[in-house]
Amino acid sequence: MTRTIVASATREIIIGFDQPFCVIGERINPTGRKKLAAEMIEGNFETVIKDALEQVAAGATMLDVNAGVTAVNPNETEPPLLVKTLEIVQGLVDVPLSIDSSVTAAIEAGLRVAKGRPLVNSVTGEEDKLEAILPLCKKYDVPVVAISNDETGISEDPDVRFAVAKKIVERAADYGIKPHDIVVDPLVMPIGAMGTAGQQVFALLRRLREELKVNTTCGLSNISFGLPHRHGINAGFIPMVIGAGMTSAIMNPCRPQEMEAVRAANVLNGTDPNCSHWIMTYRDHKPAEGGHAVTAAAPAGSGGRRGGRAARAGAR
Amino acid sequence: MTRTIVASATREIIIGFDQPFCVIGERINPTGRKKLAAEMIEGNFETVIKDALEQVAAGATMLDVNAGVTAVNPNETEPPLLVKTLEIVQGLVDVPLSIDSSVTAAIEAGLRVAKGRPLVNSVTGEEDKLEAILPLCKKYDVPVVAISNDETGISEDPDVRFAVAKKIVERAADYGIKPHDIVVDPLVMPIGAMGTAGQQVFALLRRLREELKVNTTCGLSNISFGLPHRHGINAGFIPMVIGAGMTSAIMNPCRPQEMEAVRAANVLNGTDPNCSHWIMTYRDHKPAEGGHAVTAAAPAGSGGRRGGRAARAGAR
Repeated sequence: MTRTIVASATREIIIGFDQPFCVIGERINPTGRKKLAAEMIEGNFETVIKDALEQVAAGATMLDVNAGVTAVNPNETEPPLLVKTLEIVQGLVDVPLSIDSSVTAAIEAGLRVAKGRPLVNSVTGEEDKLEAILPLCKKYDVPVVAISNDETGISEDPDVRFAVAKKIVERAADYGIKPHDIVVDPLVMPIGAMGTAGQQVFALLRRLREELKVNTTCGLSNISFGLPHRHGINAGFIPMVIGAGMTSAIMNPCRPQEMEAVRAANVLNGTDPNCSHWIMTYRDHKPAEGGHAVTAAAPAGSGGRRGGRAARAGAR
Repeated sequence: MTRTIVASATREIIIGFDQPFCVIGERINPTGRKKLAAEMIEGNFETVIKDALEQVAAGATMLDVNAGVTAVNPNETEPPLLVKTLEIVQGLVDVPLSIDSSVTAAIEAGLRVAKGRPLVNSVTGEEDKLEAILPLCKKYDVPVVAISNDETGISEDPDVRFAVAKKIVERAADYGIKPHDIVVDPLVMPIGAMGTAGQQVFALLRRLREELKVNTTCGLSNISFGLPHRHGINAGFIPMVIGAGMTSAIMNPCRPQEMEAVRAANVLNGTDPNCSHWIMTYRDHKPAEGGHAVTAAAPAGSGGRRGGRAARAGAR
């Protein structure tokens, strides 16, 4: 059984097929968040602190930490800023962290200060990336997110993306890194632009699980890019990827609809024993709250009727 | 490709792996609805009419019609009441109907008056049921729901339930009924009582699709029986069963959360071309409506960030 172990100073989490879905909180990331970027450049970490606390309160299993505030001279500016951000976050919350940067020097600086066993986000199939990141993962004995693209970009052909993932897993083995320390991101295309994006990912996830025996992740909300009511698409996508074998996602845990989908899928996937997390979370849930409006005609408990049908069928 | 054709007088629907999920509205069923049963006994069809119109307006693909108002002498009372109910419903809406009864005489009476190509609900693996229902299905050339239990009841062993389904498909073949006219109900256990109920069903659905090549259905809300916030569990279950190959369900289409899950899963399963049904339904959706409360910290469009990530990964 594939088990990827991540840890903070005080808390260990297992990512695996028999584990609750690992929600990696995506919020601490200035990409596309101008206000957050400006704050971080000024040394103001108020939003970082708020995002860390809110995401953990909302149920994040881990937090991704990215400090890529500028494209100008990131090799010099990003490492100290990422270190500072990681130190603040790990001083505040006890969940494991994901060190997220496209700058190798920032990843290494982060690995020097991160407590426990952080996740490195990420390596790709590009030669220079493989050569830069994999030795660091080996040196610090940490798992890594492997994104299924290489020098040629992101292939629309899922077989090519699988081949890239396989190449990364094999290359990692050359460095002495086991498959259970590779978390593959098969890359999710927006379904609005490519109608087969969902089916591609479901098939890829099964192959990654069965053939490469690796854990998997994705940037979850990418699937709904460009569509109205994205939370509805995301909330439908989560149970489908979990059913297909995905074991983690980089997502926003502060979205109740998406987190509800994660919790329901855990129940249905058998990773919420006795439904106890679900019951604890929703025991006082009122149908009218959370806005799932109930139309007039349905009497309370009418959903139980099919139970009666099954009982009847069995009795006859 | 397995295609089960059902039809009203004017409208044909295909149930199939490459088709939008077939939502069979469950509301017109007096089982467990004392008020509806009392009305129907009195010849009052107000609630039947309301339920028919509301379910179609909510997006039902088909309507199930059951008139089992009493356990006393159903062989005499149920056939005329089912006929009356079917006639009212098919005079009112143009979706195909499912003729739902445990009384063979009522099924046959229904088949004599139903227009188009109705679905018979149901046959089981019990000898007397097989001998009573299958000849009717052949005579009227209609498809049938096959429930995976027999004289021994409902097995908790999914292999036994698969074997029962296989037996029904084979027996139907003896009567000249093709597998594409059998819609198997693998029977869904409540997840609160059996923690493996979800995984059982997902595995069964794949086998039914790959080995027997049949369409499938279930009484959907059975999965959440006994749990709080059942709509949340149901809404997570729908994308998972669709991902595993289920092609229809008997469910309440008047529940917006469940129907949203159906629509999202259709998009993700590639059966909503160009996402056009989704876009038409949700183009004016406001995040605060439908109650999926948005927490403070998330700026509009932040979900698109991961698209940026993928783009960046490809560009590097």
